[in-house]
Amino acid sequence: MFFLVFTSLFVAGCDENQPTNQVQRFGSVTGLKPDKLEYYKELHANSWPSVLKTIWKCNIQNYSIYLQQIGDDYYLFSYFEYTGDDFEADMERMANDPDTLRWWEETDSCQLPLEEDGIWTTIEEVFQTD
Amino acid sequence: MFFLVFTSLFVAGCDENQPTNQVQRFGSVTGLKPDKLEYYKELHANSWPSVLKTIWKCNIQNYSIYLQQIGDDYYLFSYFEYTGDDFEADMERMANDPDTLRWWEETDSCQLPLEEDGIWTTIEEVFQTD
Repeated sequence: MFFLVFTSLFVAGCDENQPTNQVQRFGSVTGLKPDKLEYYKELHANSWPSVLKTIWKCNIQNYSIYLQQIGDDYYLFSYFEYTGDDFEADMERMANDPDTLRWWEETDSCQLPLEEDGIWTTIEEVFQTD
Repeated sequence: MFFLVFTSLFVAGCDENQPTNQVQRFGSVTGLKPDKLEYYKELHANSWPSVLKTIWKCNIQNYSIYLQQIGDDYYLFSYFEYTGDDFEADMERMANDPDTLRWWEETDSCQLPLEEDGIWTTIEEVFQTD
């Protein structure tokens, strides 16, 4: 349930026949189990092509994940851009893709969410410039 | 000295007459003093136009900063793209701009760096897809 936490950010009122042509940027954070560091990196260095294809088909682009130790803990910070016009529907579509579900089984077991509701926590944007 | 920590990431061998046309993505993190939360947000909601112009002139684009509380502490995560062909020279140019230096005086006093060497710590990229 990788993206489930983001669904609350759906922009109500979008008409799927009327693309907004506007990029929505998302920063998010989650924890990473110290004993899963290498496995998580190895997984992402060899991302499954079908999962990448689904990300692209669901209008997610320019997607990066960064890893940082802070104190004794490890955190993943991600940034991506959503270019579609119905985020909720696209995330549902992603969550119904069998390969993506299998991928999330691998990644979910590595992560230590900051909150109970979803794996990734969406972060407040305080600055943005093109 | 906002970007000083990034200079070690300069790609040696770039010829400034031969643009690489390649985007370099940077994720970074720093801490934020709890009593400076509102001031930092207010500053960035009203970013100085000349500072934004210098960022743009120094080939930094698509630049976002996010704020997240983790435990009792506050962290800033940033993402930006560098589109030039001499990162070190561009960062030096930025660090010589008087308005940018005044801006950094404001922001530096808000931040709690994770390391001694620079305000922002560059984060390891573990995944990227266009």
